[in-house]
Amino acid sequence: MIAEILTIGDELLRGEIVDSNKAFLAERLLRLEIETRFQTSVRDDPADMRDAFLRAQDRADVVLVSGGLGPTRDDLTLAVLAETFGRALELHEPSLEAIRAFFARLGREMAEINAKQAWLPAGSEVLPNPIGTAPGCLLEAPREGREPALFFCVPGVPGEMAKMADEQVLPRLEARLARAGRAPRAMRAVLLRTFGLGESNLDHELRDVAREADVALGFRTAFPDNFLRPVARGASAEEAEARLAKVCDAIRERLGALVYGVGEETMEQVVGALLRARGLTLATAESCTGGLVGQRLTAVPGASAYYQGGVVAYANDAKRELLGVPQDLLARHGAVSAEVARAMAEGARRRFAADLGVSTTGISGPEGGTPEKPVGLVYVGFAHEGGSEAQELLLPLDRERHRALTAQIALDRVRRHLLGEAPLAPRFGRERAR
Amino acid sequence: MIAEILTIGDELLRGEIVDSNKAFLAERLLRLEIETRFQTSVRDDPADMRDAFLRAQDRADVVLVSGGLGPTRDDLTLAVLAETFGRALELHEPSLEAIRAFFARLGREMAEINAKQAWLPAGSEVLPNPIGTAPGCLLEAPREGREPALFFCVPGVPGEMAKMADEQVLPRLEARLARAGRAPRAMRAVLLRTFGLGESNLDHELRDVAREADVALGFRTAFPDNFLRPVARGASAEEAEARLAKVCDAIRERLGALVYGVGEETMEQVVGALLRARGLTLATAESCTGGLVGQRLTAVPGASAYYQGGVVAYANDAKRELLGVPQDLLARHGAVSAEVARAMAEGARRRFAADLGVSTTGISGPEGGTPEKPVGLVYVGFAHEGGSEAQELLLPLDRERHRALTAQIALDRVRRHLLGEAPLAPRFGRERAR
Repeated sequence: MIAEILTIGDELLRGEIVDSNKAFLAERLLRLEIETRFQTSVRDDPADMRDAFLRAQDRADVVLVSGGLGPTRDDLTLAVLAETFGRALELHEPSLEAIRAFFARLGREMAEINAKQAWLPAGSEVLPNPIGTAPGCLLEAPREGREPALFFCVPGVPGEMAKMADEQVLPRLEARLARAGRAPRAMRAVLLRTFGLGESNLDHELRDVAREADVALGFRTAFPDNFLRPVARGASAEEAEARLAKVCDAIRERLGALVYGVGEETMEQVVGALLRARGLTLATAESCTGGLVGQRLTAVPGASAYYQGGVVAYANDAKRELLGVPQDLLARHGAVSAEVARAMAEGARRRFAADLGVSTTGISGPEGGTPEKPVGLVYVGFAHEGGSEAQELLLPLDRERHRALTAQIALDRVRRHLLGEAPLAPRFGRERAR
Repeated sequence: MIAEILTIGDELLRGEIVDSNKAFLAERLLRLEIETRFQTSVRDDPADMRDAFLRAQDRADVVLVSGGLGPTRDDLTLAVLAETFGRALELHEPSLEAIRAFFARLGREMAEINAKQAWLPAGSEVLPNPIGTAPGCLLEAPREGREPALFFCVPGVPGEMAKMADEQVLPRLEARLARAGRAPRAMRAVLLRTFGLGESNLDHELRDVAREADVALGFRTAFPDNFLRPVARGASAEEAEARLAKVCDAIRERLGALVYGVGEETMEQVVGALLRARGLTLATAESCTGGLVGQRLTAVPGASAYYQGGVVAYANDAKRELLGVPQDLLARHGAVSAEVARAMAEGARRRFAADLGVSTTGISGPEGGTPEKPVGLVYVGFAHEGGSEAQELLLPLDRERHRALTAQIALDRVRRHLLGEAPLAPRFGRERAR
């Protein structure tokens, strides 16, 4: 089965927006083992749209069309589609009612212009839009001596497109494949979030795991993390699920605590859940990250249950006066040192009466480096009931990524402590030669 | 002149990456007043590529091809292009040298596989790649009775694509247009960053300004900001520049301090530059934003010259002990109150010995609201030599956007003070009825 994705809109052809719908739809088709062979975009121009429809009818069995379903004059998709395949537009009363109800929920009256969205090609199947005004449709374009080409039309608004693809388009495609005796094998996939090992190392570590029959292992870098996406297929959902569970177990056994989360889970959510489960509290003392660690911790709803607060100790005075870092430590070792990182973490723990304290102090650049303490040098301090420690790293990155990686290391330090794991070996940075 | 953008790669058709090259190239073509009429993507498949090349030759005058110039077996763009238009591939010695030199700069030897990238279609013009190994090329595909179609091939790596589009493709296209007596009118554009007025209000405020001859005014929402992009054209660069300057003056006169920056300038950079110019220092006290304001201030290199630090006072104890907020204020008014916001800003100013203090305290949700103090309520406090004040806002947004908008209001408060402007009237939130 050959698929084409066709997106329509002047704004795409003028480069005003990046078209993410194509990637979304292509990924969804792959779930049914349907490969997208063509992606096309044209303007809101009837002649170009017509050409694109005819070409797609000829070369593709399923055509996903997005865009041009809005209420304004330049939204022409259904009118041109109907004309191209010799259909009239007919008023679909239930859709008109749905549009009216949509506006009523917002406490507004439907503008007359929106009534246009309820006119659909005769003989097409309506695809309801639960979150917007534009219904979609499925139109079968006949082809001599072949199965008809299936045109699925959905809105261009990404949220509506995604919801309708998942709820309207994919189930219909899957049912048709099943009826034709070409049911796609069941697919189950999961995203595993890892931190602390580069993509090529992950690939190497997992090479034999990935050879597992019928499990594809995808990699994606999302700095400073690396994501793994095992995709398992099987004759039944149970079989695919069992395969997926098996490969996930193998990955976790191989990588241990390098896997920190699943799906949408962020590092700060994982840290928060662990703190909450253990009944422990945390405080932060940030120099080079400037509030980034605190900001991430408090991005999680309910963080006040375990996060006490922190000091952004950018100036030395602040380190001394708000965190109680002794002046002689600052004078002897400098603000960027293991000693000061430990004292900062201890100070945060003490000043906020928290169970755990974590700190950052480093030189994120681009200025401020010296031969002895170069740009990229950073210390992550950690204090707990049993004492304190600091990790020294040299991260040769730009300012933004230096700060982002440092914040992730700090959060991961807390996580590993709560799991009873050793601190991460700094494979991604160069450990500093002394 | 009709343009087509053609991107090539299995990863696009599988939806593994969102293709941003198309939008980039389309925007660049518009600078030469060339409209993109078709965008197409195909797999690394010789038959599909050949079809796409032939179709583009027929329907477009200029074809920008990106992707498939890499060293591996599935990088076939130049081989298929050459074959489609009856050319041989020829070794281009200077390109081979450039590739060798590229690796030498990295202290590595060129792998044999990379030599393939120096084989280019006979008769094509080489487009050097200053930051990667793959040179591009310009091939003229002849057409009967018409000017040849121009195929510009560039790599798919976005950074290389962008640099080669700007340095190799656009100048050549512009020169050709000029030779054909169809020189594009000069274009000058600028991005004006505004904060504090919604898109529809901006549109309304600037309607007559935008009517200015030959100046198009684009709007783009980048929450919590709104960007304006006036685009001026003229017979000469001077004329376009004069038009642009005139419209920018008119916009600034109309909007005043609502325009906070130009181009890539961020709010935190503007605040930092103003603090530096005035020789003043700033400290922060953050509750609901949890470190976001500090993080943004310290994202600017050299922030230590004016940012002293801050307290993330998430727990009440922290507000009291680290910022000196009186217990009776907390007890009488609650942590989310104008009184506590002022005391926090004053405390930050005092504890960090800074000239200015800014604070946030609010309920970002989704939990934690009460009938008296609903989710969305937030206070931004500000303290300076002359006293302190607090602004009360009700921002009905999700947690992430509530925090982002609050942080922007806090930074903008500092900016307006430094400019001698009144605090922003909270048109974007509902001011709280009391």
